[in-house]
Amino acid sequence: MSKKLTPRSEDYSKWYNELVVKADLAENSGVRGCMVIKPYGYAIWEKMQAALDQMFKETGHENAYFPLFIPKSYLSKEASHVDGFAKECAVVTHYRLKNDEDGSIIVDPDAKLEEELIVRPTSETIIWDTYRRWIQSYRDLPILINQWANVVRWEMRTRLFLRTAEFLWQEGHTAHATKQEAIEEAERMMEVYATFAEEFMAVPVIRGIKTESERFAGAEETYCIEALMQDGKALQAGTSHYLGQNFAKAFDVKYVNKEGKQEHVWATSWGVSTRLMGALVMTHSDDQGLVLPPKLAPIHVVIVPIYKGEEQLDQIAEYLKPFIADLRAKGLSVKFDNRDTLKPGFKFAEYEQKGVPVRIAIGGRDMENRTFEVARRDLLSKELIGADQLIDHVVALLDDIQKTIYKKAINYRASHITEVNSYEEFKEVLENKGGFVSAHWDGTADTEAAIQEETKATIRCIPLDFKEEEGRCIYSGKPSKMRVLFAKAY
Amino acid sequence: MSKKLTPRSEDYSKWYNELVVKADLAENSGVRGCMVIKPYGYAIWEKMQAALDQMFKETGHENAYFPLFIPKSYLSKEASHVDGFAKECAVVTHYRLKNDEDGSIIVDPDAKLEEELIVRPTSETIIWDTYRRWIQSYRDLPILINQWANVVRWEMRTRLFLRTAEFLWQEGHTAHATKQEAIEEAERMMEVYATFAEEFMAVPVIRGIKTESERFAGAEETYCIEALMQDGKALQAGTSHYLGQNFAKAFDVKYVNKEGKQEHVWATSWGVSTRLMGALVMTHSDDQGLVLPPKLAPIHVVIVPIYKGEEQLDQIAEYLKPFIADLRAKGLSVKFDNRDTLKPGFKFAEYEQKGVPVRIAIGGRDMENRTFEVARRDLLSKELIGADQLIDHVVALLDDIQKTIYKKAINYRASHITEVNSYEEFKEVLENKGGFVSAHWDGTADTEAAIQEETKATIRCIPLDFKEEEGRCIYSGKPSKMRVLFAKAY
Repeated sequence: MSKKLTPRSEDYSKWYNELVVKADLAENSGVRGCMVIKPYGYAIWEKMQAALDQMFKETGHENAYFPLFIPKSYLSKEASHVDGFAKECAVVTHYRLKNDEDGSIIVDPDAKLEEELIVRPTSETIIWDTYRRWIQSYRDLPILINQWANVVRWEMRTRLFLRTAEFLWQEGHTAHATKQEAIEEAERMMEVYATFAEEFMAVPVIRGIKTESERFAGAEETYCIEALMQDGKALQAGTSHYLGQNFAKAFDVKYVNKEGKQEHVWATSWGVSTRLMGALVMTHSDDQGLVLPPKLAPIHVVIVPIYKGEEQLDQIAEYLKPFIADLRAKGLSVKFDNRDTLKPGFKFAEYEQKGVPVRIAIGGRDMENRTFEVARRDLLSKELIGADQLIDHVVALLDDIQKTIYKKAINYRASHITEVNSYEEFKEVLENKGGFVSAHWDGTADTEAAIQEETKATIRCIPLDFKEEEGRCIYSGKPSKMRVLFAKAY
Repeated sequence: MSKKLTPRSEDYSKWYNELVVKADLAENSGVRGCMVIKPYGYAIWEKMQAALDQMFKETGHENAYFPLFIPKSYLSKEASHVDGFAKECAVVTHYRLKNDEDGSIIVDPDAKLEEELIVRPTSETIIWDTYRRWIQSYRDLPILINQWANVVRWEMRTRLFLRTAEFLWQEGHTAHATKQEAIEEAERMMEVYATFAEEFMAVPVIRGIKTESERFAGAEETYCIEALMQDGKALQAGTSHYLGQNFAKAFDVKYVNKEGKQEHVWATSWGVSTRLMGALVMTHSDDQGLVLPPKLAPIHVVIVPIYKGEEQLDQIAEYLKPFIADLRAKGLSVKFDNRDTLKPGFKFAEYEQKGVPVRIAIGGRDMENRTFEVARRDLLSKELIGADQLIDHVVALLDDIQKTIYKKAINYRASHITEVNSYEEFKEVLENKGGFVSAHWDGTADTEAAIQEETKATIRCIPLDFKEEEGRCIYSGKPSKMRVLFAKAY
């Protein structure tokens, strides 16, 4: 636990992998590409879920649950959708095991399914097959549903949280009477995600739309939020899709409008996943370990006693009681670590690695002086606080940590959006500085692909707040009306 | 929606199926045996989850997440475990689809997995494979973890909530240093389940242990809670297993004890599932539809305006505002149904079907008289309540409904536990009265199997509060020391 992490400057990727394991967030399992989310990591995910779930409900959505399995024929109904997902599907072909003659366990060949089932990579198809039964009239619309679920995409190279074969997520699926309403919903949910990322995760994001080649398989428009990690690589943190009538047509979902005419329904879908845990880690953490925004921290305050002998430990515990009660009354999660088998220095290192925002140390002399040593995780600084000020100080400190790490991330991003006007400059910035590169692009998929082939950078998004600006594509030299954001990405 | 249900007396099974669909709880999906849990049904499940989750955390448990897939070899490691689950496994054999020559989508034969993966029917094996890495010393114990997840058991005959191929559940998996501690944990969690069933679901349960042949595959002892449905059939509502060292031995999980000696770890697992939704429906509901205990009702109070014209509707809406605010301030979920397209009678029937505990009707004359018509769903009775008494009345009424339906269920059960002393009597009670039949049994699996073969009744449990009593087995005539509870069961 207390062993030091590989510094970010030495090997960022190794630092990340070590941190996720040492901070007790997650680990690889015996199943290729599938992770175990450990209790401390899961507690952070639960806090994310609770905040998002409330935001979904406040915007009129209800939760429901749809099957894990999708018949192969459903997946095939929307052409571009199956193209997008066919290459990474876990396929169930049998429904029974049996004992072989030699006593080993084998798949029973007599229990082959007539039609193979796909473990959902996303649920548009099974949900639109259901919506067909639910929607007859304009009175049945809109349908505003969210699902918390596990999904499977058979990735070949996996990394904890960032890319795993199975991951946890939420997926919203809505049905609307008009195109305009569906577009507004897709934009609203992108904004919900952006608000969540910025206010809870303290991760600044760029709101934008994807180019056609980066769009969700089956979408007419994909809205996204893009974050920037400390190594200068971008991370797509959430997407919200305007699906047009594609799935309504594929699954024949029509409604009778107020004029008595049949029309296909308009749709959206939107999702964020446990990938957000990776974004959280890579935005704020340092060489000492995890740094957590207080709003998502499972433990806000840890109190470590500095003592000699059981008697003094008991005195400290007794002395602390009203302080702990007062902190908890403020809605804070407080842990008093009275483990007798570990030295304070070891505990300090452990909570630094786990990113507990505030650490309080208290010894015999502190009790005499009525002071506490209060340390903040983000700046790794500490100060002596009088007992009478403790509660107010801690509450204000947590608020300040939330703001400080957000500002730090904003500043990092601001210094890592670089405007370039030539392909040479583009490659130079990508290579030596990283971050988002703002450049003119001719709008063609060919140019996009060629740039990706040569530099590994993709167009992360066309920012929603772009300003029109005449220019020339850095690659083809053809005229362009605005800049888009390129970056290497997770 | 307003169409009447088949009465219970006519066809109980049909009544149940119709009710689940018409009350908007769930429906069958296009995937054999898998259900769609609709928003109203899911909202009840969320309330169950929230209450249980809090009880688990209060008893020291943390949540975590383990992989959906289990390598076939893991499942085989515990011999009786694989025997119990092999016959109903969804098996993933491939990880990719591709286009066939004729353009259709087929499973790519080149993407066959080296080792098949089983969709978890329960997670003991994958979790104990993980615990081996987590446990070295007695300091690492106990491990008290719970997981909320979906699981799959390939049932041939399925019914909404009661028996579905995929279902949602929680599964607790704990590891302990001593046998005694593990047994205490298994008993504690059975008691948590019983408390939840009785206090939240208002479903009385019998606490007991299973006979050897009804035990969980891999357990040394299975504790259970058994409920009685209105048709006289029993339903197993939750189980808690003392697993001994079976999984620790199968996965080689040892710890060094305080004396420095290596020992295998002791284990429990315990679970309840969306099956509880079926128990909830079948315990309280009537021919009009669902009856819900207020503690699990998504909507506590529905208010239906009786009006002529938009102007009067607006007046009523305005008049109601402070009442609705006061009800909500009491923590109640209140719905004001101002839909203009439906008549009050239709709305009344709809909320009766959906089991909303309290319905308030308000018209022009009620406003003048400052009264409300308040109806309770459980007794289908109504009374006029003065405006000044409304809030207190509704709060007290909800409390009374929770107690009344519990008492009704207790009384039903009390009159349906029948002591018998001969096999003739046993069969007669099973056939004509149903319910639990309390009878002497010789303790052998042979007798148990023969009785099941002849009568379809199984031993539901050996009640924990049994009293020693000399007697003779109703089937074999051999001596017996106590009565056990038989019943036909879901």
